[in-house]
Amino acid sequence: MTEPGQLSSAIHLPNGFSFAAVTAGIKVSGRLDLAMAKAAPGTTAAALFTKNRVVAAPVEIGRQCLAKTRGRVRAVLVNSGNANCATGNAGTLTCQQISRTAAHLLGTQAAEIFPSSTGIIGVPLPAEKITAKLPELAALLEPTTRGAEQFAQAILTTDTRSKMASSQFGAGQSIVSLLGIAKGSGMIHPQMATMLVYLFTDIAASAPELKQLLREACDPTFNCMSVDGDTSTNDTVLLLASGQSGVRLRRGSVRKQFAAALLAVCRSLAGQIVADGEGVRHVIHLSVEAARHRAEALQVARAIAHSLLVKTAWAGADPNWGRILAAVGACGVPIDPRRISIYIGEQMVCRAGARCVFDEARAHQDLRRLQCDVRVLLGRGRASAVFTTTDLTQEYVKINADYST
Amino acid sequence: MTEPGQLSSAIHLPNGFSFAAVTAGIKVSGRLDLAMAKAAPGTTAAALFTKNRVVAAPVEIGRQCLAKTRGRVRAVLVNSGNANCATGNAGTLTCQQISRTAAHLLGTQAAEIFPSSTGIIGVPLPAEKITAKLPELAALLEPTTRGAEQFAQAILTTDTRSKMASSQFGAGQSIVSLLGIAKGSGMIHPQMATMLVYLFTDIAASAPELKQLLREACDPTFNCMSVDGDTSTNDTVLLLASGQSGVRLRRGSVRKQFAAALLAVCRSLAGQIVADGEGVRHVIHLSVEAARHRAEALQVARAIAHSLLVKTAWAGADPNWGRILAAVGACGVPIDPRRISIYIGEQMVCRAGARCVFDEARAHQDLRRLQCDVRVLLGRGRASAVFTTTDLTQEYVKINADYST
Repeated sequence: MTEPGQLSSAIHLPNGFSFAAVTAGIKVSGRLDLAMAKAAPGTTAAALFTKNRVVAAPVEIGRQCLAKTRGRVRAVLVNSGNANCATGNAGTLTCQQISRTAAHLLGTQAAEIFPSSTGIIGVPLPAEKITAKLPELAALLEPTTRGAEQFAQAILTTDTRSKMASSQFGAGQSIVSLLGIAKGSGMIHPQMATMLVYLFTDIAASAPELKQLLREACDPTFNCMSVDGDTSTNDTVLLLASGQSGVRLRRGSVRKQFAAALLAVCRSLAGQIVADGEGVRHVIHLSVEAARHRAEALQVARAIAHSLLVKTAWAGADPNWGRILAAVGACGVPIDPRRISIYIGEQMVCRAGARCVFDEARAHQDLRRLQCDVRVLLGRGRASAVFTTTDLTQEYVKINADYST
Repeated sequence: MTEPGQLSSAIHLPNGFSFAAVTAGIKVSGRLDLAMAKAAPGTTAAALFTKNRVVAAPVEIGRQCLAKTRGRVRAVLVNSGNANCATGNAGTLTCQQISRTAAHLLGTQAAEIFPSSTGIIGVPLPAEKITAKLPELAALLEPTTRGAEQFAQAILTTDTRSKMASSQFGAGQSIVSLLGIAKGSGMIHPQMATMLVYLFTDIAASAPELKQLLREACDPTFNCMSVDGDTSTNDTVLLLASGQSGVRLRRGSVRKQFAAALLAVCRSLAGQIVADGEGVRHVIHLSVEAARHRAEALQVARAIAHSLLVKTAWAGADPNWGRILAAVGACGVPIDPRRISIYIGEQMVCRAGARCVFDEARAHQDLRRLQCDVRVLLGRGRASAVFTTTDLTQEYVKINADYST
C-alpha cells in the first residue's frame, strides 16, 4: 500500500471494472483499436471535455449521456484510428448506433455507454467494423491487470508507449484503489491524436462530488501542460467510481486522501503524455512565480511554452534567456522587464531584465537532461503556476509534416 | 514612371537622402554592419515601434528623440550584430554616446540622430568600434542607388538577401519618389533578428501626417504577417520625408497617390520579409472571410498562422483542413463549425464543417507552390482580413536550435 499522494509501480485494480480490447481493423497497422471497460451497476461518473468549439460526435454524445443519466455509466467504448470528427450528422448517427448495439449486448441502455474516438478527422467511422467485433469484445472482458493493459494499448495512436498510473489507500478496514489510463502524444493533431484519460476507482461518490474532484485534479495537471499548444477536438477526461470498495467519499478524511491519490495519478499521466510528446527530447518544468494572480502566471507560462523561439532553443539545450524574456514581454501582461529574473536549473541567468554572470556550460548541461527546471520571476506579486512543456525538435516537424500525403 | 500603387523594378532615389555603410567589426562574419542615411535639413519623420514590453535601448531613445524634436530627423544610424537590448542603463548610455558623436560629425543635435540596432541580445554594444568608424562612414555618404544598396546590406542579420522596394508618381510638373529598405527573416529572434523598415520619400509632409499614413500602411502589411508568431524587442518602422520634391502631401489628390505608393512599397517589403523567413519553403496568403468584424477575422487568422500543426502540414504540402478547422475552433471566437468552409487554392475542401469532395492531388500540388492561397469562411458576417504567413520546416528548427551554444 502506498500513501494516497504517492504512486506505486504496481497496478492496483479497483473492484467493479473489467477490461478488454480487440483488433477491429480501423487502424491500418492491424494493432488493437477497440477497447471496452465495463463498470458494475451503480457506477457514478463525471467528465471534462475539450474546450474546442469543433468537437467530435462521441464528445457531443458522451456529454448528452452523462446529462441524461445524471452521471451513470455502465461501459466505456473507445476506438482508435478514427476520431469521428467533422463527419456531420452521419457521424452522430454512427456513434449512436454503435452505442445501441453495445447496450443491447451488455443488457443496459445506450445512454449508459460512454463513447470515445481518436484518430483521423473528417473520415466516416466504419460502424460495421466495430459492431461486428462487439460480441467478441464483450466475451473477453476480465477484471485483470492484463485486461487493463490491453485497454491501454488499444486506445493509442501516435503514442510510442501506453500510459497507466495507479494508487491505493486504506480507509478503516477497507482499501480504495484508483487506476488511470491515458493516451496522447501531442495535445492534439486532429488527423491522428487527442488526449483521452480514463480514471477508474472503487470509492463510492456521487456524480457531482466526482465532478468537483476531477476539476481540482485536472487544473494543475492536464490543464497545465503543453506539447504544441493546439487543442484537440476529442479531448476527454472521465472519472468512474464503482463504489465497490465500500468506502464512501464523504466519510472522515477520505475525501482528502482520495483527492491526493487522484492528483498523483493525474500528475503521473500528464507527465507521461508530455514525455511521450511527438519528437520530444526535453521536458521542461516551467515555474512562473511572483505573479499578481494565478491567471497571470498561467498567461505568462503559456506564452513561454508556445514560443517557437523558446522551444527551439530548448531543443538545442541553449540557455537563451533573451528569448524567454522577449516572450514574456509580448504576452500581454504589463510586466516591467527590470523586475524579471530567470533561472535555468539552479542558476540565475537573468537578473533585473539583464544578463548576469552564470556558468553557461553548466546551464547547457542542465538543459541537456531529459527533465529541466526553468523559473521565471515576474516581481509583481505572490501567485505562481507550474507548467509542464517540451522542446520543439526537427523530429516533431517531420512527424507532422510527412503525415497524410 | 509607375502608377502609385504599382512597383517598378528600378530603384527610385528620393531627393534629399544620402547613404553609406562600413564594416565596424560587430558582426563576427566581417560583413557590413554599420549603416547611415543622412537626410536634408527640414526632413520630417514618424515611426512605429514594437509592442513588446521588453524594448532595446535604441527603441527607447528613438521614441524620445522623435518626441523631443517633434518629428525631425537628420540621420538614421543602424548597426547589425548586436541588438543593444537587455543591456541595462549602460546600454542606454552607450546609445546616447554614439548619437552625440554622430551629431557632432554631421553638425546637428544628438536628438536628430535616429538609432537602430539588431543582433545579439544581452551583450554590451561595443561603442568604440562604432564611434571609431563614424568619420569614415560620414565621408562615404552618397545620394546613389549604390549607397542605398550598401545600407540595405549592412542592416541584415540572418536574412539571406537584402530587401528594397520603390515607387514613383507624378504630381503636376514634379515627381515624388519613395524608397523602402527592410530587414527581417523571422518576426524575431531575440538573439539574432528583428524587423527594421526605413521608408524614404521626398514628399513634403508634417510629422503627424506621416504618422497617420504610416499607421494606414502598416496595418494591412507588417501587422498582418507572421513567420513564427514572436515579437521582437527592436522592431521599428520609420518614415522620413525630405520635402525636396517640392510636392506637398495635402495638394489635391496627392495624399491618395502617396498612400497607394506607400502601401505598395510596404506590401512588397512585407512579402520579401516573409519569403526570406527562416527555413520557409511556402508562403501562405491566408484570407479569413465572413467574420463579424475585422478584429475577429484577425484573431482567427493569427490562431491559424500560429498553429504548429497547421504550419507543419503546410511544410508537407498536406491539404489537412482538419487541422485548420481545429485551430479555428480553439481560438476563442464563438464560431459554429457547421458554418465554416475552407478553400485550398481554388478548391473548396471543407463545407459546413465537414469534408467535401475535392481533388486531393491538385490541393497537394497547389500547396507545393512557393505561394498558395488558403481561405477560411466563418459564416458570421461580412468582415475579412488577409494575413501572410509561412510553413514551419525542419530547417526553421535547425536554424533556431543550433544557434548560440
